[in-house]
Amino acid sequence: MDERIDKQLAFSLEIDKVKNIFRQTHLSNNGRNKNDAEHSWHLAVMAYLLKEYANEKVDIAKVMLMCLIHDVVEIDAGDTYAYDTEGLKTQKAREDIAKERIFSMLPEEQAREFVEIFDEFEACETPESKFAHAMDNIQPLILNDSNNGGDWREHNVTAEQVYGRQRKTKLGSERLFEVTDEIIKKNIKKGNLKE
Amino acid sequence: MDERIDKQLAFSLEIDKVKNIFRQTHLSNNGRNKNDAEHSWHLAVMAYLLKEYANEKVDIAKVMLMCLIHDVVEIDAGDTYAYDTEGLKTQKAREDIAKERIFSMLPEEQAREFVEIFDEFEACETPESKFAHAMDNIQPLILNDSNNGGDWREHNVTAEQVYGRQRKTKLGSERLFEVTDEIIKKNIKKGNLKE
Repeated sequence: MDERIDKQLAFSLEIDKVKNIFRQTHLSNNGRNKNDAEHSWHLAVMAYLLKEYANEKVDIAKVMLMCLIHDVVEIDAGDTYAYDTEGLKTQKAREDIAKERIFSMLPEEQAREFVEIFDEFEACETPESKFAHAMDNIQPLILNDSNNGGDWREHNVTAEQVYGRQRKTKLGSERLFEVTDEIIKKNIKKGNLKE
Repeated sequence: MDERIDKQLAFSLEIDKVKNIFRQTHLSNNGRNKNDAEHSWHLAVMAYLLKEYANEKVDIAKVMLMCLIHDVVEIDAGDTYAYDTEGLKTQKAREDIAKERIFSMLPEEQAREFVEIFDEFEACETPESKFAHAMDNIQPLILNDSNNGGDWREHNVTAEQVYGRQRKTKLGSERLFEVTDEIIKKNIKKGNLKE
């Protein structure tokens, strides 16, 4: 094999580890905790399916790629739960080190491309990254809603915290934020989210 | 919610079940069996990463979508192992029924689009579907190679069987087939694959 394809396949094998990074959130039907790979898969499918609701026109291949790779850094940095105040303080530093190690396994220009895609997602300033964030927020919301808010109840999450996180959903999609808002209100009423 | 978005979100929730469809093949580092969602995630990332090796120019968003949804039918039809001769006989019939039920949860034109994408993958006649099949073949190959051929040894798979399956890799990518061929030969030599 030549060096280029060798690097690409070594990276492909390395990211298999994403399947062993488990999150705080659970599958539907009160299932097990979900891992980063299957979470990312779900976001990418939903992005394609719901693209008509993006506030701005998006390059859907780019959104899908963003969804697919944004959690790869957690191979080294671990998962940081959305409402883990302490963990969130160190998240960026941990993920920056991970990003450097993992993406630099790739041929140089692909490493640069993947880092750019990752950084673009994190910055949440472009239409694509805003819509990808909307997916990253609405997907756990609908699973959690289907589980009668189990994850929120387990972590004593408040409606204010959920609305804080869902600000980014609104940046990506006004329409999906309306749905989010309905789901949050329903879960406040059911006592799954503290006011 | 209006009926359209309601259907789209119901479908999004339904496909969460793909995460519970476990395959015969294993994760790297001799890990657990992998599930369809994380498998599909891996194919889509690899498709983007390796697109330069496609024999013909491909619409990469379409390839990624194909990789992401081609196993959704296994929610009802179950996984059929690549070398399960008996299971392969009934696979198409089982998957056709599943395809009908699952995709018809979507708004009509999206259901039609997803069925077309699924059928295109299965037919393996277009540049996109050939390249998606190459991913579906090379990904378990590199994981299995990293595990010293554990899956082949467990199922007494022969080199002839692997070459049979990898014909589709060649249709999608001559270059990746060369790599595949090297890996198969190495595993024959190591006794992981029977000649």
